[in-house]
Amino acid sequence: MAAAAPPPPPTPAPSAPTGLPDSDSTPVGHPLFSRIRLATPLDVPNIQKLIHQMAIFEKLTHLFTATESDLASTLFKSPPFQSFTIFLLEVSSRPFEKDSNLHSQNFTPIERIINLDHSLSDPEAETFRNGINGDAVVAGFVLFFPNYSTFLGKPGFYVEDLFVRECYRRKGLGKMLLSAVASQAVKMGYGRVEWVVLDWNVNAIKFYEEMGANVLPEWRICRITGPALEAYRDAI
Amino acid sequence: MAAAAPPPPPTPAPSAPTGLPDSDSTPVGHPLFSRIRLATPLDVPNIQKLIHQMAIFEKLTHLFTATESDLASTLFKSPPFQSFTIFLLEVSSRPFEKDSNLHSQNFTPIERIINLDHSLSDPEAETFRNGINGDAVVAGFVLFFPNYSTFLGKPGFYVEDLFVRECYRRKGLGKMLLSAVASQAVKMGYGRVEWVVLDWNVNAIKFYEEMGANVLPEWRICRITGPALEAYRDAI
Repeated sequence: MAAAAPPPPPTPAPSAPTGLPDSDSTPVGHPLFSRIRLATPLDVPNIQKLIHQMAIFEKLTHLFTATESDLASTLFKSPPFQSFTIFLLEVSSRPFEKDSNLHSQNFTPIERIINLDHSLSDPEAETFRNGINGDAVVAGFVLFFPNYSTFLGKPGFYVEDLFVRECYRRKGLGKMLLSAVASQAVKMGYGRVEWVVLDWNVNAIKFYEEMGANVLPEWRICRITGPALEAYRDAI
Repeated sequence: MAAAAPPPPPTPAPSAPTGLPDSDSTPVGHPLFSRIRLATPLDVPNIQKLIHQMAIFEKLTHLFTATESDLASTLFKSPPFQSFTIFLLEVSSRPFEKDSNLHSQNFTPIERIINLDHSLSDPEAETFRNGINGDAVVAGFVLFFPNYSTFLGKPGFYVEDLFVRECYRRKGLGKMLLSAVASQAVKMGYGRVEWVVLDWNVNAIKFYEEMGANVLPEWRICRITGPALEAYRDAI
């Protein structure tokens, strides 16, 4: 949760995630082909780098200790959506090749074309190359997992992290990732999607409210961690 | 989470959950035998009643819709601790009979004797009888599930609800339930236990801080629910 509450666009791109074009239309300007798919263990190196960037962005690198090994040993233990789940965001300057391996029973990748006014330069393209689609790179991710409302008597999703790399922000991609989680929640009959935001991050709060979220003013997070948690090893 | 942040004792009982007596000692005063065990589908009627009481306590009955059927169809889908998990608190005026059915591979019930100065009257004893141990009644519960810290690269537990029925409060039972979750987290190598509290509930905050928790002042919860969530059904 220190890692939560993403850096959303200060102002949401008003019409950023456009639909796929009709078959007879052609993307205009500088199309950015974007795809959301379920992450797999093969994505751990990129995920670890994204989390590290998030820690830098939040000035919380002193709290960041997760290694690739930590992530690999704790993620992907359950089928998608039953526990910790990651949607990976990839972008490319050309259409994604069809990859039937990505179509799981649980989730069909979401593809959108974002028409940019200017071509985009990604200084970290080599670092975040996904290795399967020519120039496609990993641009962001969202990590979420089921939570539960006893009042509703049904599950929801809690979004732990939402992150888009700097050069891809303010294009509607964060909104696209969060919308994908919300849409999945509705499809599964879930009752809520929740996450946290820093109270001084007024741009993020405005962005979330425009997405239909309520900010709950009175609740505070309590946390036991580190030595204080270790002290409970034999406490009971 | 509307249902979260329990009614903890305004002042924690300083030495309430005592250890089991040595074999040659006898409980003094009015012993209250207490036991924490994993809930099962058979406990759903009592769990539903406890949640309803919690909604009344929090003056949030307008948000409470969970039926026994809702709970039965969404809980107990995964092995304990892998998803939504409930510890049930039972109390009795006499020792609990050994019940080998309650000793699962995952969790051995925790028993404690609380020595009360006065005998205790439970006006709802008949309603919350557990049906398996003479006069034993269900006194409270805690519902929790795994969450995940990307900074630590490991899971934790999120405590959604902690509730102790009114006549059993201020005896250390809430602390015993929360300690059981913290202890389980340590045993599983998890990094955190988290929950939420209302910012004006200074007694609860004091109680939690004495248990080793930090209250994070800056984070706010965002929630999409109801029609605002439904709107995402075909949003992407």
